Amino acid sequence: MVDKNFYNIKENVTLAQVAEVTSAVLLDTAKATEVVASIATMTSAGSEDICFFYDRKSKDKAANIKAKACVTTEDLKAFVPENVIVLISSNPKEAFIKLNEFMYSEKMPKAGIDPSAKIADSAHIGEGCFIGANVVIEDGVVIGDNCLIEPNVVIAHDCKIGNSCRIGNNASIAYSIIGHHCYIYSGARIGCDGFGFQFMNGQHHRIPQIGRVIIGNDVEIGANTCVDRGALDDTIIGDGCRIDNLVQIAHNDKLGMGCVIVAQVGIAGSCNLGDFVVLGGQVGLADHLNIGSGAQIAAQSGAMRDVEPGAVVMGSPCVPFKDFMRQVSFLQKNSKK
Amino acid sequence: MVDKNFYNIKENVTLAQVAEVTSAVLLDTAKATEVVASIATMTSAGSEDICFFYDRKSKDKAANIKAKACVTTEDLKAFVPENVIVLISSNPKEAFIKLNEFMYSEKMPKAGIDPSAKIADSAHIGEGCFIGANVVIEDGVVIGDNCLIEPNVVIAHDCKIGNSCRIGNNASIAYSIIGHHCYIYSGARIGCDGFGFQFMNGQHHRIPQIGRVIIGNDVEIGANTCVDRGALDDTIIGDGCRIDNLVQIAHNDKLGMGCVIVAQVGIAGSCNLGDFVVLGGQVGLADHLNIGSGAQIAAQSGAMRDVEPGAVVMGSPCVPFKDFMRQVSFLQKNSKK
Amino acid sequence: MVDKNFYNIKENVTLAQVAEVTSAVLLDTAKATEVVASIATMTSAGSEDICFFYDRKSKDKAANIKAKACVTTEDLKAFVPENVIVLISSNPKEAFIKLNEFMYSEKMPKAGIDPSAKIADSAHIGEGCFIGANVVIEDGVVIGDNCLIEPNVVIAHDCKIGNSCRIGNNASIAYSIIGHHCYIYSGARIGCDGFGFQFMNGQHHRIPQIGRVIIGNDVEIGANTCVDRGALDDTIIGDGCRIDNLVQIAHNDKLGMGCVIVAQVGIAGSCNLGDFVVLGGQVGLADHLNIGSGAQIAAQSGAMRDVEPGAVVMGSPCVPFKDFMRQVSFLQKNSKK
Repeated sequence: MVDKNFYNIKENVTLAQVAEVTSAVLLDTAKATEVVASIATMTSAGSEDICFFYDRKSKDKAANIKAKACVTTEDLKAFVPENVIVLISSNPKEAFIKLNEFMYSEKMPKAGIDPSAKIADSAHIGEGCFIGANVVIEDGVVIGDNCLIEPNVVIAHDCKIGNSCRIGNNASIAYSIIGHHCYIYSGARIGCDGFGFQFMNGQHHRIPQIGRVIIGNDVEIGANTCVDRGALDDTIIGDGCRIDNLVQIAHNDKLGMGCVIVAQVGIAGSCNLGDFVVLGGQVGLADHLNIGSGAQIAAQSGAMRDVEPGAVVMGSPCVPFKDFMRQVSFLQKNSKK
Repeated sequence: MVDKNFYNIKENVTLAQVAEVTSAVLLDTAKATEVVASIATMTSAGSEDICFFYDRKSKDKAANIKAKACVTTEDLKAFVPENVIVLISSNPKEAFIKLNEFMYSEKMPKAGIDPSAKIADSAHIGEGCFIGANVVIEDGVVIGDNCLIEPNVVIAHDCKIGNSCRIGNNASIAYSIIGHHCYIYSGARIGCDGFGFQFMNGQHHRIPQIGRVIIGNDVEIGANTCVDRGALDDTIIGDGCRIDNLVQIAHNDKLGMGCVIVAQVGIAGSCNLGDFVVLGGQVGLADHLNIGSGAQIAAQSGAMRDVEPGAVVMGSPCVPFKDFMRQVSFLQKNSKK
Repeated sequence: MVDKNFYNIKENVTLAQVAEVTSAVLLDTAKATEVVASIATMTSAGSEDICFFYDRKSKDKAANIKAKACVTTEDLKAFVPENVIVLISSNPKEAFIKLNEFMYSEKMPKAGIDPSAKIADSAHIGEGCFIGANVVIEDGVVIGDNCLIEPNVVIAHDCKIGNSCRIGNNASIAYSIIGHHCYIYSGARIGCDGFGFQFMNGQHHRIPQIGRVIIGNDVEIGANTCVDRGALDDTIIGDGCRIDNLVQIAHNDKLGMGCVIVAQVGIAGSCNLGDFVVLGGQVGLADHLNIGSGAQIAAQSGAMRDVEPGAVVMGSPCVPFKDFMRQVSFLQKNSKK
């Protein structure tokens, strides 16, 4: 049951509307005017709710569905109890997302600038923006239209942010140029100095970090994640990348389009990732690696060498997935003798 | 020597008081009026201090104790130099905690609301709260009595926080319902969107995250730790859980009572942890796992499958502790040939 | 090309100036009045730029240098195309740093205190400091001269900070004494309670944390890194340490001089590191370990036992580097049978 205190909820949604929004087919059209109260999971849905069933592995749960209605596939509908109203979809997961977006939304603040925000005279704020309390926007910053800058954000001098971006509270942006439709989460640190030192005269002497962070369109960067700016060249995050919480992206890293970087990954400096690379949680990459497009590196793995496009690897140091599994079973078998 | 600048210190504490507070027995009652200046470790305690000796492994250190007094067990007292005044306790570690709480305390700010705090009219703040500078409390928030909300905290709309909670500076709370006596540390991010996407039309399309974070009573959540809110169901942290710094807890995770989650652990989405589970530092859990009550997963381990209640496991992928040690020694022995 | 919006750039720098600043020798003195526009990498430098070539592994790139000038060694100059003006340096990497510092600098705010900063009457701020918007400085804090305290920083009561320190925005400092020339990055949490509990009466009872964090001179602590204060003794970070982003340093840890701690390392409580220890990214140390001076622990490794001075170790649990490589190759070879 979605909490009305936190979300806007559309009420009295009929199964006819569900069918329309999700492009699903309501098998028993006599039920078109039936109303659903809430979207819920297969196990938690009650008699007024609708659920979605798209994973064959959940077929045991399906037998116990208590929902009023269930959106599923032609293939899976046989597992749904007879008293549940069925809608057939070629892709129930997409149907779930569409109905979800139709029925629920976050309560967003109205456009406007909080009087406590400190915005430099030379900064430019687009139309329809919300700028929260205690936000600091320094000289020369340009922010596009319809942006949501949450409280206590600091945007350092001369950064550029596109349209329809959201910057979560307490985040820090510096030396960065950010595209449209990006979401930088709370506490993310974008554009800090890279970690570069040279041992000179008995001390670790800082190598000046004079690059930037360039972020494409439609990028998400998770809570408390750090993206350091380039040392000389830029750090680049391609269009459509999804970066989870507590990730470390070092100076000069370049991520292609649509990469998925799960929580607590650490990418050392000057790595090149192709498009649609997937790094599982806690993966570590050594510096200066090339990770080919479509490569997938399993959680907790560590890469010390380049990874070929499309490769699926695992382990620390990582090897092809099958080799890793063979190593695991070899070790398990032989160590017990 | 505890620093008076930072802590309140009770002075002129006599050994009689020590005995009373700690339920320890002062062997030489003629020393009851002797005063101790400070609690210190076995190695750093000087001639005015008191120390605690409860670990047999430290018996070599015991011979060099320079303290005025030492609280130890009947078993261990023989290791303490003769000139040190001895108090006998059945549990010197608990005695240490009790004396510590008696002699020292943090300097807490007085109740009151800083004028720079921005509190929505519809928010409700309980009795005896301290609300620090630049705190932002949005519409509909309810905060119990005697809470300490440190500077620059942002509490988003409609969150509920119980009595006697402390929220460290620069923390973010959203979509959350928090019990009594909880301590959320600086920079923690509670209630951000979970990391959920569906590949649609060539893009990673966000799956709406419309759940909450429900936190029980007497919970601690460490600095810069992230707890994402549920996608549809809630993310739940049970009573008495202790979560360290820089931990990632993903959407829909459910932790039972009294779990201990050490720093930099990453728990992927929809995991179920029983009661009193212990996860060592940097442990990673794959999604949708069940970790049974009392299970212990050693530091840096990775779990890809369910873990039985009470199991003690290690490695990545993790195996029973003894098997892991056997693997390590097998590998070490055989690889050297 | 360094971005003029973000950095101060010295223009019209001649090769004579380059030679002087870097102590390099311009081979063709007729070129002394030639001007360079920008420092760039070997691959990105254009016909007005200068690059630096010091790694023999990059000799293939050298053949394609398009720069106007290149600083390199006597040994490597043969790899540079004939039309590129060559300067000879005994240490081109240091030359790079020196020219970089000569040509570029960050745009720093002017000294002054933002009117929104909340500074306790009993705090003392040195000469020439910048104190940003919404900064909170509590009772008894002492800040040296020429410090840069960025917006939204919270410095809790009685902390001491030396001269020429920089505290990045949204950072938190408590129970800490910090030397001169330190840089604490955005979102770092210095001085939070350590993670210490005792199981008493069926609950995890907090062990009071009444120590401090003592930070030497010339220390850097990365973004969103956490350094917990000591439980009874202090947590100590020695002079010249370099700590990257998202690192966890627990209570009572003691780091010697010049340690390099790469991103996402986790050091459990009461560890002692000697001088110039290097911990690669994501390394984990168990508690109470001694890591000898000059020891190097490779990325993702885990130490469960002490590490000898000067040792180079790898793996989880870590072993000498050569042993680790032997284990890896043994496993790879034998598991394929």
